[in-house]
Amino acid sequence: MIPRRYERLKQVLNQRQPDLTVLTEDVHKPHNLSAIIRTCDAVGVFAVHAVNRHSDTPTFSQVAQGSEKWVKLHSHPDIKTAIEHLQQTSHKIYAAHLSDVAVDYRQVDYTQPTAILLGTERWGVTDEAANLVDGHIIIPMQGMVQSLNVSVANAVILFEAQRQRLKANLYDKVRLDSETYHQTIFEWGYP
Amino acid sequence: MIPRRYERLKQVLNQRQPDLTVLTEDVHKPHNLSAIIRTCDAVGVFAVHAVNRHSDTPTFSQVAQGSEKWVKLHSHPDIKTAIEHLQQTSHKIYAAHLSDVAVDYRQVDYTQPTAILLGTERWGVTDEAANLVDGHIIIPMQGMVQSLNVSVANAVILFEAQRQRLKANLYDKVRLDSETYHQTIFEWGYP
Ligand SMILES: C[S@@+](CC[C@H](N)C(=O)[O-])C[C@H]1O[C@@H](n2cnc3c(N)ncnc32)[C@H](O)[C@@H]1O
Ligand SMILES: C[S@@+](CC[C@H](N)C(=O)[O-])C[C@H]1O[C@@H](n2cnc3c(N)ncnc32)[C@H](O)[C@@H]1O
Repeated sequence: MIPRRYERLKQVLNQRQPDLTVLTEDVHKPHNLSAIIRTCDAVGVFAVHAVNRHSDTPTFSQVAQGSEKWVKLHSHPDIKTAIEHLQQTSHKIYAAHLSDVAVDYRQVDYTQPTAILLGTERWGVTDEAANLVDGHIIIPMQGMVQSLNVSVANAVILFEAQRQRLKANLYDKVRLDSETYHQTIFEWGYP
Repeated sequence: MIPRRYERLKQVLNQRQPDLTVLTEDVHKPHNLSAIIRTCDAVGVFAVHAVNRHSDTPTFSQVAQGSEKWVKLHSHPDIKTAIEHLQQTSHKIYAAHLSDVAVDYRQVDYTQPTAILLGTERWGVTDEAANLVDGHIIIPMQGMVQSLNVSVANAVILFEAQRQRLKANLYDKVRLDSETYHQTIFEWGYP
């Protein structure tokens, strides 16, 4: 591997945030999934979690620009298992969900270990998931249309998280444990 | 028209921001254009401007959820004409553009009349446009991929604008002139 490439991989890995993640519940359109992964890469999300009722293997569109390679994807058999897994690893889970109890997404402290739950394109977050999470967040809207595109909602929330994490200097020190770090640099460098 | 519907149209129109807009330069993928319009609707953009080298009539995908109906679209013959039009109506135009002179998008004052220029999917903003605008803005990224999806970039910037405009109470009073207001309520109500 040429040294410049190696430096670039390290620079990105040095900023990866193991305690900021996204959980997608049946998001299935390839261009949405791809745009979500691409945004996750951009804000330093290390791994994304997914539950897919209809198929095991999510498909990505060109939109991802190869970002699937830089963000790990963990599939879970069902939403309960996925949420339990994230809660056991100390994440607070916020459902991006247009419910009556949702708070403005800018009120959440994203410098703490956080997972954002995103609902499926047509129907949104399931009742089961909405009941299991730690809170609901909403992006305020002033228009006629009832909801945002799911990859847009993801980006708006993650860039608020990025803003808070930049301010808290969380991108300035290595956040991955050293085993994960070295394994990942190996996987990225020698595919 | 039933009264409840009329109230809803008025409520949305009362919050429309005639001095916040987007100019797309050859953005041509239907799902991107649609997601852009849908986000514009959500933050109260009244009209969007477009230049399309390859076709006059942009096509929208289902993603828009019918939001094309709620956001006016002005097509311009070329980028110079479009930029001049916006500058004559007192807008500052910021190109979302990954250039050396770009400033962090959070540094701009979006409570002033503002247009965001978005570049085409593959190649971004043209040199011509980059030279004509009032400034360049960048969304900071920490990942491997070089750019965000254009509809994602649009959303991240517009929701920062929305945040500033909410704070400045710009959604609390009617911003459209009364002729435009009444013409639009008529168009929306009796299609
Ligand atoms: C297209 S929306 C689903 C709409 C569905 N009809 C509903 O009411 O939930 C897909 C997902 O995008 C996210 N989303 C869209 N707009 C949002 C908003 N304004 N605030 C928070 N999340 C939003 C949510 O995670 C939602 O489940
Ligand atoms: C896919 S990008 C184009 C990438 C192109 N290779 C370039 O370097 O400009 C399409 C458009 O999205 C917007 N965009 C994408 N990522 C951005 C970022 N991080 N900051 C500002 N604008 C961005 C810009 O308007 C850009 O022209």
